[in-house]
Amino acid sequence: MAAWGERLAGVRGVLLDISGVLYDGGEGGGAAIAGSVEAVARLKRSRLKVRFCTNESQKSRADLVGLLQWLGFDVSEGEVTAPAPAACLILKQRGLRPHLLVHDGVRSEFDQIDTSNPNCVVIADAGEGFSYQNMNKAFQVLMELENPVLFSLGKGRYYKETSGLMLDVGPYMKALEYACGIKAEVVGKPSPEFFKSALQEMGVEAHEAQ
Amino acid sequence: MAAWGERLAGVRGVLLDISGVLYDGGEGGGAAIAGSVEAVARLKRSRLKVRFCTNESQKSRADLVGLLQWLGFDVSEGEVTAPAPAACLILKQRGLRPHLLVHDGVRSEFDQIDTSNPNCVVIADAGEGFSYQNMNKAFQVLMELENPVLFSLGKGRYYKETSGLMLDVGPYMKALEYACGIKAEVVGKPSPEFFKSALQEMGVEAHEAQ
Repeated sequence: MAAWGERLAGVRGVLLDISGVLYDGGEGGGAAIAGSVEAVARLKRSRLKVRFCTNESQKSRADLVGLLQWLGFDVSEGEVTAPAPAACLILKQRGLRPHLLVHDGVRSEFDQIDTSNPNCVVIADAGEGFSYQNMNKAFQVLMELENPVLFSLGKGRYYKETSGLMLDVGPYMKALEYACGIKAEVVGKPSPEFFKSALQEMGVEAHEAQ
Repeated sequence: MAAWGERLAGVRGVLLDISGVLYDGGEGGGAAIAGSVEAVARLKRSRLKVRFCTNESQKSRADLVGLLQWLGFDVSEGEVTAPAPAACLILKQRGLRPHLLVHDGVRSEFDQIDTSNPNCVVIADAGEGFSYQNMNKAFQVLMELENPVLFSLGKGRYYKETSGLMLDVGPYMKALEYACGIKAEVVGKPSPEFFKSALQEMGVEAHEAQ
């Protein structure tokens, strides 16, 4: 393995994941992963630019940053790239009015979005919100559209909480894709557009990022 | 289109679907589809053998037959091929102990099955039972197995109730397949084994059935 100095030659910026990298969610908010608070602090003291790029879609950016700060991380809202704000941009650009199947914690990110008479569906990691009734409602909205459009904030299979593995949004995206015979548009990782927007916000090119 | 006499030449038995063919489910049990009660009666008066082959997995056969009789159909429990009894046979043959994610109405079909210390998962059209918590439990059971085995009683996308379209088991099968990176074994239509067992029970060959 190359030495760090060599590996970081030409690197100007670092994108950091949050859930499962900086902290594990769970009861009482979760717990920082050993060494991660200090690692972020060291990166910030270095010459490297740092940006946080997350698929977290249960919380608004404000709530997520509040939690991270409470866990000891040096992070501000403006340093975080997250799927819900990216989805809002797309909805506005395309004149789409979503039916939202999202966690209550992230709903405030959509406050400026018209959700009347929906012509698309947005799903995110809704946790307990993925009830049969809510899934069936999203399904019915899609089936009533001539051209059903489904956005999924990420497509993760599952994530780890301190209490165990938890189903993420991906399985529910697959469920609606199969039910309606459609393909979802993923907003968030691993979508290249999402990474690009994070790099732009950091002000570095892809080949300069780690 | 060929005349009925010609089309039925060589046919000795008829397999009839139930949900969406004989009746539409819904509030108060559902409603017979126009003409279906008389169609069944005419088939039974004919020289043809008749068997009912359903993917219904919200109700036990006893309850399903009770409902059909109440709607006016001439049908008995022994004339119905359904996925839950077929699944029980497979579980016994392979020494499998299922974690059940099924509707309460069909649970009695599994009364003779050992469900302690599960080494596989069986899902069926659980309706409201497809809560996040129940799906996550099924997911966790599968992830703890060295060789995860998932049975799905049918793989329908959705079905029609008098109140509208409802998600069937198929989307939830896809969700667990994606979450665990596995492929489910489908018990019920369109599995060829399922049709074969229905034909055997009727005592006719595939080429003699309609």
